[in-house]
Amino acid sequence: MKTCQITFLPDNKKITVEKGITILEAAKGANVYISSVCGGDGICGKCRVILKKGQVTTEPTGLLDPEEIARGMVLACQGKVFEDVEIEIPPESRAEEGEILLDRDKRRPRKHSGWPETQSRKHSGLDIYSAVEELESSPKSFGIDEARLFTHSPLATKISLRLPPPNATDTVSDLARIYRELRKKASLPILQTGLANIKGLSRLLRENNWQVTAVLGKRNGTTELVLIEPGDTSGVNYGVAIDIGTTNVVAHLIDLVSEKTLGMMGTFNKQISYGDDIITRIIFASEKQGLEKLHQAVTENINNLIATLAREHRIKLADITAVMCAGNTTMMHLLFNIDPTYIRKEPYIPTADTLPVVRAAEVGIKINPRGLLACAPNVSSYVGGDVTAGLLASGMWEKEEMALYIDMGTNGEMVLGNKEWLACCACSVGPAFEGSGIKSGTRAIKGAIQRLQITPSDYTVRFSTIGNVPPRGICGSGLIELLTEMRKTGLINRAGKITPDLKTPCIRAGETNLEFVVVPADKSETGRDIMITQPDIDNLIRSKAAVFGGARTLLKKMGYTFKDVERFYIAGAFGNHLDIAKAIKIGLLPDLTPDKFQYIGNGSVAGATMILLSYGAMKNAQKIASKMTYLELSDDSTFHEEFISAMFLPHTDLSLFPSVRH
Amino acid sequence: MKTCQITFLPDNKKITVEKGITILEAAKGANVYISSVCGGDGICGKCRVILKKGQVTTEPTGLLDPEEIARGMVLACQGKVFEDVEIEIPPESRAEEGEILLDRDKRRPRKHSGWPETQSRKHSGLDIYSAVEELESSPKSFGIDEARLFTHSPLATKISLRLPPPNATDTVSDLARIYRELRKKASLPILQTGLANIKGLSRLLRENNWQVTAVLGKRNGTTELVLIEPGDTSGVNYGVAIDIGTTNVVAHLIDLVSEKTLGMMGTFNKQISYGDDIITRIIFASEKQGLEKLHQAVTENINNLIATLAREHRIKLADITAVMCAGNTTMMHLLFNIDPTYIRKEPYIPTADTLPVVRAAEVGIKINPRGLLACAPNVSSYVGGDVTAGLLASGMWEKEEMALYIDMGTNGEMVLGNKEWLACCACSVGPAFEGSGIKSGTRAIKGAIQRLQITPSDYTVRFSTIGNVPPRGICGSGLIELLTEMRKTGLINRAGKITPDLKTPCIRAGETNLEFVVVPADKSETGRDIMITQPDIDNLIRSKAAVFGGARTLLKKMGYTFKDVERFYIAGAFGNHLDIAKAIKIGLLPDLTPDKFQYIGNGSVAGATMILLSYGAMKNAQKIASKMTYLELSDDSTFHEEFISAMFLPHTDLSLFPSVRH
Repeated sequence: MKTCQITFLPDNKKITVEKGITILEAAKGANVYISSVCGGDGICGKCRVILKKGQVTTEPTGLLDPEEIARGMVLACQGKVFEDVEIEIPPESRAEEGEILLDRDKRRPRKHSGWPETQSRKHSGLDIYSAVEELESSPKSFGIDEARLFTHSPLATKISLRLPPPNATDTVSDLARIYRELRKKASLPILQTGLANIKGLSRLLRENNWQVTAVLGKRNGTTELVLIEPGDTSGVNYGVAIDIGTTNVVAHLIDLVSEKTLGMMGTFNKQISYGDDIITRIIFASEKQGLEKLHQAVTENINNLIATLAREHRIKLADITAVMCAGNTTMMHLLFNIDPTYIRKEPYIPTADTLPVVRAAEVGIKINPRGLLACAPNVSSYVGGDVTAGLLASGMWEKEEMALYIDMGTNGEMVLGNKEWLACCACSVGPAFEGSGIKSGTRAIKGAIQRLQITPSDYTVRFSTIGNVPPRGICGSGLIELLTEMRKTGLINRAGKITPDLKTPCIRAGETNLEFVVVPADKSETGRDIMITQPDIDNLIRSKAAVFGGARTLLKKMGYTFKDVERFYIAGAFGNHLDIAKAIKIGLLPDLTPDKFQYIGNGSVAGATMILLSYGAMKNAQKIASKMTYLELSDDSTFHEEFISAMFLPHTDLSLFPSVRH
Repeated sequence: MKTCQITFLPDNKKITVEKGITILEAAKGANVYISSVCGGDGICGKCRVILKKGQVTTEPTGLLDPEEIARGMVLACQGKVFEDVEIEIPPESRAEEGEILLDRDKRRPRKHSGWPETQSRKHSGLDIYSAVEELESSPKSFGIDEARLFTHSPLATKISLRLPPPNATDTVSDLARIYRELRKKASLPILQTGLANIKGLSRLLRENNWQVTAVLGKRNGTTELVLIEPGDTSGVNYGVAIDIGTTNVVAHLIDLVSEKTLGMMGTFNKQISYGDDIITRIIFASEKQGLEKLHQAVTENINNLIATLAREHRIKLADITAVMCAGNTTMMHLLFNIDPTYIRKEPYIPTADTLPVVRAAEVGIKINPRGLLACAPNVSSYVGGDVTAGLLASGMWEKEEMALYIDMGTNGEMVLGNKEWLACCACSVGPAFEGSGIKSGTRAIKGAIQRLQITPSDYTVRFSTIGNVPPRGICGSGLIELLTEMRKTGLINRAGKITPDLKTPCIRAGETNLEFVVVPADKSETGRDIMITQPDIDNLIRSKAAVFGGARTLLKKMGYTFKDVERFYIAGAFGNHLDIAKAIKIGLLPDLTPDKFQYIGNGSVAGATMILLSYGAMKNAQKIASKMTYLELSDDSTFHEEFISAMFLPHTDLSLFPSVRH
């Protein structure tokens, strides 16, 4: 017998496999989804499963503690099967649930806005907060008005054609007949097409009674006849807007006809297993096969997201004709398999800012084989298309008022300016706010603690989770609130150090440091304590110091202070909500009235959606990118001083935070 | 022993091969060139070789007569080798010589003309003719003046770039740096490039000290950065202009920098083995794998021509960046692997008239993998880019005088008009003038009889051959003269029938018909009689009747007669010379003074060369194509009457040929 049987619990799915296969591989075959960030390299430790019956062969790993191993836990990617076994997938390792960023069944409320749907305002369960209500995103509140709602011109448009059949007096060729009909409908001075569309065209037209649908694509000032489909398919056309972050990859499935967002989904960037930040990935890219591995990782991410979204919405991949990506410049290089080496070498030159519109298949993305892939234009090596897209979505680039745009990704970017000028800088924030590098950190997924309060008397924690389900971890917004509450209740001091002598079982000594238990194991969905350790807190403080220090430096260099800024746009992947007042209390944001702030969530994917839906938006994005002046902060002494000063809660200089001092 | 040795005579080249290989395959390996029109299918009978020692295994064939078989003759493509053998390649089967259309060592005399070099005027040997001197082609005599010599802008241009290296104040991306530099040199509003050029760009620039060469291509109103080469390669750039005829394929190798024609080469179209004319090929294309076979046949032709030209001129295929083709609409469909079915179905609609500029590799043509392939624009299903190109070269489309352009290809096309209007028609001429379908016919290659005179007293023939070497066969111009001389000396009557009762050994009974021996076997390079048979003559008369009848019909339909035509341009693959006076005598051309005629040889490849060298020429070709009105002659009663009337020598109506009557 060369095969054996695996039973996956709790779903009781059975699959017969060849001996020697890993549990992770087998699960894919059985359509059982197991979390895996590192893609099966045994690095991330996310694919823990429990062996219930039988034995598997596995290598020793430092990612499981002795108690877990005693419970039968193995890493699915490392465990090889040689006999019939029963495997339980614990909740924290289930990928299908974990992949969901936001409720997928919601629809975007307005046409033409290109703006993602927001989470509903009221949570039916525990709802202890209301102060942030005004921050919840809606197109109106971001100032997206009709003037920015460009005419319908998505990256790929379908046009139904009923051609007049040829006769003795109308003998133009088949291709010219299509061009002629298209030009009756639109001004298309330069119209191109590929040989693939011409080869079988004569039969296609005649077999479909001269009724076909042209898919037109926008490519650098020209129009491409991307595809000719039989019959009238003009009502069926989908696109995907994608934010490729250093830590997270988020995809929105867009109906290019109705302009509605049908679903959203996110996942950790698989490249994490090759390095946490941009610099380590660029170094890895220079190793043998390094670039190829990084490229493969992100295309796998994207293909998984698209395939899952398509399956859920019963859409054929062939009906997806366009993908619009936004991300930092390094992510775009890796997506396109372009050597990023010189991004980190002085004077920091990317290979390309504006990447050509290509066929998605050219970079390995699986949609319609002739479908297009485009990117939001990058500005420089360290200010990417995600910022361009976010600015586009914010609208600050076309307003009189001076605004500051802060994108708190793993790489943090700040843009200051208005419709006259734009100046920007970038600094390393780290992945803490995105739930990575924090022991109980998680992305903003269902079950993530996003809001919490600590009772001063007994240090117990009241919390709410995304989706109001039992907690699995803490996402960025929850971590910010946790820091604020710990400082308020004296669990940590101004330097962020955990107070050692408090009489509470919630504070305990970990292996090397103190740690604070937020949710005990018995109340957690994962069956493990949800906690925060001293190194976690140190990471978070470094992150917030980089954001605040970067913003202060940019203002200083341009001759302004926070008081001159009329509006703050905050973009990031913290969760659906960001409690501005609490973010001010830890010194992440400046001490100004909350009405000046707008939390816009993932500005990158919002802008990418707008560009996907409108060629006018693409032109505006190019305008924004060409307008932005980039200031280099590396080796900048002002930034270094500002960063160090911000390493306290809220800040070394308390006069900057009068409301917190009182 | 699994191998055996073959010795090729007379060169005494030896090669060790695996048993079972065909002689033709083995010859390729030994760099011994054997003629083969059908590509090894045992159909054309051109690859006869003589077995001198040893035995080969072969199938019975009707292409060799018993006497030939007795002499040891086998078809190289059918003979399989299982033991050591000696094989002699007789002169008529040698491909290297046979492939040569014209003297390759000549250079084009003038810059910018795009006009092929002509044969030198005087032949050192037998030179019995002088009447046709004025017809010899030179750019001036065709009216190609400075106004038509467009600025230098070949399909693919190389531009050497020495880029300023980036620094802290000049941080534009690598790609934008190249674009910036290019735009300093030329107005390039839409500039595009492919991912392949971007991927390794950063290293390419730095490793070559910012010195690179950009290959720019013209694609439908946009400019493509086709390729970026290290260092300065701007002095090395080649293109190929190709005429794809139904019977012949001719390629000119062009230096795109100096604009000189370096070499010319032609071959029979391999598609002949699937059918002699357009219609039979279209029918074959609809069979299983038919289209693919036809497509493969012509790309093999082209690849062989290009590879041979490149080898002879010590040019790397990678340095050939552009190919420009001209041919009839069906040939263009087959080259691009496009289904031609509806070209022959009413109302005769081609899939495309103007084909997109593609990468040559997309259709299987082997030059630089990123090099471009473009085509002269077609007019309709039966008037192709070869006519557009020929008209462009003739210059009649921009002159006041009314002219008639006649292309005597296998498909004959006639165009009437001037700079105000152009009307055209097409009819089937057959391949006789191109040396196909005639027993001793040959293409206009070295050794082809192109001029001759018959002595009335003894019917002996004096002749001259291309290259002044012993005769191998008779090309188009020789066949026309042969017909004239045979009529003049009474060897044939007005209906073209051979006079049976003449007292001469030159006329003899063949298998089924009378035949006239032009050169006896002992004086022929091939060792076989060079002759003309009654069916050959009938073919030639049908061909000339179609040309004359087609031209008369076109004139009649437009309300003109031959007398209204101020200039006649004659294009065709007859040879280097066409004796107009003799062509009039058999009624191929109308009875007008010879100074009205210009024989321009292969107008198609001449025009293709011009378009290859100049984007302005391409635009003019498009103008010509869009201006032409096509008249359909199939089922036209006027044409049918005219054709029948022209089936005599010179014509049924002798009043049309007063000079011949006298």
